[in-house]
Amino acid sequence: MTEASDHPNDSFHVFDTTLRDGAQREGINLTVADKLTIARHLDEFGVGFIEGGWPGANPRDTEFFARAAAELDLKHAQLVAFGATRRAGGRAADDPQLAALVNSGAPVVTLVAKSHDRHVELALRTTLDENLEMVRDSVEYLRSQGRRVFIDCEHFFDGYKANPEYALAVVSTAHRAGADVVVLCDTNGGMLPLGVRETVAEVLARTGARIGIHAQDDTGCAVANTLAAVDAGATHVQCTANGYGERVGNANLFPVVGALEIKYGRRVLPEGRLAEMTRISHAVAEVVNLAPSTHQPYVGFSAFAHKAGLHASAIKVDPDLYQHIDPELVGNTMRMLVSDMAGRASVELKGKELGYDLSEDRDLVGRVVAKVKEQENQGYTYEAADASFELLLRDEVRGRRERFFSLESWRTISEQRADGAPGNEATVKLWAKGERRIATGEGNGPVDALDRALRTALERIYPQLAKLELVDYKVRILEGQHGTGSKTRVLVESGDGVASWSTVGVADNVIAASWRALEDAYTYGLLRAGLVPEETE
Amino acid sequence: MTEASDHPNDSFHVFDTTLRDGAQREGINLTVADKLTIARHLDEFGVGFIEGGWPGANPRDTEFFARAAAELDLKHAQLVAFGATRRAGGRAADDPQLAALVNSGAPVVTLVAKSHDRHVELALRTTLDENLEMVRDSVEYLRSQGRRVFIDCEHFFDGYKANPEYALAVVSTAHRAGADVVVLCDTNGGMLPLGVRETVAEVLARTGARIGIHAQDDTGCAVANTLAAVDAGATHVQCTANGYGERVGNANLFPVVGALEIKYGRRVLPEGRLAEMTRISHAVAEVVNLAPSTHQPYVGFSAFAHKAGLHASAIKVDPDLYQHIDPELVGNTMRMLVSDMAGRASVELKGKELGYDLSEDRDLVGRVVAKVKEQENQGYTYEAADASFELLLRDEVRGRRERFFSLESWRTISEQRADGAPGNEATVKLWAKGERRIATGEGNGPVDALDRALRTALERIYPQLAKLELVDYKVRILEGQHGTGSKTRVLVESGDGVASWSTVGVADNVIAASWRALEDAYTYGLLRAGLVPEETE
Repeated sequence: MTEASDHPNDSFHVFDTTLRDGAQREGINLTVADKLTIARHLDEFGVGFIEGGWPGANPRDTEFFARAAAELDLKHAQLVAFGATRRAGGRAADDPQLAALVNSGAPVVTLVAKSHDRHVELALRTTLDENLEMVRDSVEYLRSQGRRVFIDCEHFFDGYKANPEYALAVVSTAHRAGADVVVLCDTNGGMLPLGVRETVAEVLARTGARIGIHAQDDTGCAVANTLAAVDAGATHVQCTANGYGERVGNANLFPVVGALEIKYGRRVLPEGRLAEMTRISHAVAEVVNLAPSTHQPYVGFSAFAHKAGLHASAIKVDPDLYQHIDPELVGNTMRMLVSDMAGRASVELKGKELGYDLSEDRDLVGRVVAKVKEQENQGYTYEAADASFELLLRDEVRGRRERFFSLESWRTISEQRADGAPGNEATVKLWAKGERRIATGEGNGPVDALDRALRTALERIYPQLAKLELVDYKVRILEGQHGTGSKTRVLVESGDGVASWSTVGVADNVIAASWRALEDAYTYGLLRAGLVPEETE
Repeated sequence: MTEASDHPNDSFHVFDTTLRDGAQREGINLTVADKLTIARHLDEFGVGFIEGGWPGANPRDTEFFARAAAELDLKHAQLVAFGATRRAGGRAADDPQLAALVNSGAPVVTLVAKSHDRHVELALRTTLDENLEMVRDSVEYLRSQGRRVFIDCEHFFDGYKANPEYALAVVSTAHRAGADVVVLCDTNGGMLPLGVRETVAEVLARTGARIGIHAQDDTGCAVANTLAAVDAGATHVQCTANGYGERVGNANLFPVVGALEIKYGRRVLPEGRLAEMTRISHAVAEVVNLAPSTHQPYVGFSAFAHKAGLHASAIKVDPDLYQHIDPELVGNTMRMLVSDMAGRASVELKGKELGYDLSEDRDLVGRVVAKVKEQENQGYTYEAADASFELLLRDEVRGRRERFFSLESWRTISEQRADGAPGNEATVKLWAKGERRIATGEGNGPVDALDRALRTALERIYPQLAKLELVDYKVRILEGQHGTGSKTRVLVESGDGVASWSTVGVADNVIAASWRALEDAYTYGLLRAGLVPEETE
């Protein structure tokens, strides 16, 4: 590990605990390899500290620190080991848990300490005085081993309400023993910004310790609570990527850093790193195997998506009127949703986004708007189906419908047989490159069977389809007053390992709608593969 | 619409805009029926105002207000129509858009007004003076028509930074013209709590108007910004259920109300409504067809989920040490002790609601909880399927499964023929009252055909089915990572002209899942008709 060279100085700490506290999120289960990958992403983003886990308490975390020492070449961040103060009644120098922290090789150690009197008595089952002694002894021991020490005061805000003198005594003890930062933790996440600000200000005034903040999101205010602590003078913020964490989660690293850099004008990342934010957020989500939140501030797919056609013309004049920052600052992009209220301006903007300059051809824009409206009256929606919109736009630009295959017929059969066995089978008949193809597929359901039949029918003619994969599938029934006779809208997300695209189909029933979305998905996939379509209509 | 009788007085407004601003969220597309259903849920929750849409601007919203007047019987909330100030250069009394607001019949109107000088010039393309005149004239006109008027000052915070005197002039003009509340909107969502608090305090001091807040979540601080405005003296909060809204979303109704009621000790809902919060949140998510966010504050499935281990014994001693509120306050449950969604208490309450007194039989409650958990592991959810839950409960109470018919097999065939004609056909074979019945139905889709075949098979034996009708049908694909191979959940709403009921089915594919939901729907319908089932299993 190198010392942070181009990192902003030590006066403000961006401390990430995705790998330790973030991993507490329900449904996250990280391997050591995952943790190493995430650490690389966080380092690339430019955080100052990466808390890697609790060596000694957890074999996987012990292994992480061993492999990190050998494999990680961090450019900006320092690795932090997490642990607890020594056992009651023992000596820090003899404590195996503290020895494991030292042996981890991490240059920085965060120790969790109790600061709420009831927790000392009920959870630690020791005296208030012994708890202070545990803090002092543990910090001094780790300092004597050459480690930098941060103290996490667990349940600080509740403790401060219940017994302020004792909570302050824990802060002062840690500070005097040589802890560089005393972190006030809102462990159960119940605080609101005003209370955080007042408490942080009081603790700063009464102890002189350097103060950090660790906020949980149980009131939906973790980002605001973190910023409130900074407003009061905290200079160390503990966050997790995408806000992962126990229960509701932790303070989300990205909006905290976004606010500090853009709203506060405080440089907390190395030069040029802020624009990596969207990419890093999505990359971490991929590693933990959760879909990136589409509505996450700053980095979400929808964070700069504009729907109202009303505003589209004003957005053309000055996009800054309708968004709080330029999305490129954080590596995101403005998206115009082609919606219900589709007007000429939003079609033009959307076309531009897809690489079609429509500004010179008023007739063409008019035809596209008319076509979109006609389709929307049928129940289509293009705001979540860029690929289908692009095919529509392409057809209008070229004045003809171009496809790689043309359907003759399809049929699906689903059944539950008398012996209880389910069955799903589909047959597709189509023409491609002048050849008539018939194929049958089986699947978990009729749409799955249809997808397999279509793939089988085409794969010899278009081997590029081997890479095409259905990623997600959504069904919406429109016009809720007509029961199963309603229109059905299907959205299909497909991918080829490099990019993904969405298509839409609407019909009287789910299978016909799925066919249309699949047809667009395959057509778009073949276009992406660089093939030139035959004219089929 | 009745006057709110048991509602907290008018001194503090909880104003919901899920149906108007919330519907701007990417991917949400509400039918009129959806909007009516959501309005009922919000009224049941006890919000003071429900903004229903923009009558006149959008045919669907016009229809919503017409149907709301006939069909909605609101207990707590008043319906609000949204619109804009009159056109530049015209007269309010002649403005067709304002006439549509009056004709909507809503007792309250929210008018959006520009308060940022650049927006007046660039988007409205009129003069600053004419904009003030538009505000005055529009408010006075609506007041003369007997409407209560709230003014949404769009882009207020940016406008106040750019030209504070002008922004204040808009507030004062609206106030003097008779607007009851002037709502400061952070339209692009770029504010942080400290700035909101300062600005709201200044506006209050300088205008004397009653102030409301409308916050967007682009910095991840919409809840905190809303509370910051309240701290400064705002007495009207605009929110959306689950924080739905354009881009990142709006201030989330549930954590805002949770903080006001629990943290501030301010009663903003009618007595006993807070405990409905989790249920209402999930019900609204079902209607808009989005998965409820598992990590939402207060109401998320994970919001009070404690990972076992370290804290387990201390939590037994005193759960309040580890959670910021008692989850039952908001109708949620702590999930270490009651590991899945169904807790004993909620089963007992639900049973009572359905007319089964379970309080005396702990074993029975235990069996129902176990059965619900088993079903939930398969992907079932009973929050929006009362009738399926009641059938499950009934089976456990009677200790046997009672049905009116038993399936032998079914089969559906869907096709698009070479001549372009679509076809959907289903065959059902079943036993009822000792008789084997075979019937075939045709329909708009395979599920419609299946419904018709089932009806045909049963109608001679059970003529009561003539009244049964499928009202709504929803499909949700679970586990989005597996494409069309995922599990499918179908919710069916049925009616008999008097009442309606919902049933659920889960299976590998949409047709098998639909069959299960239909089977429950028919069984429940026959029970409602007063028939006594044969024992079939």
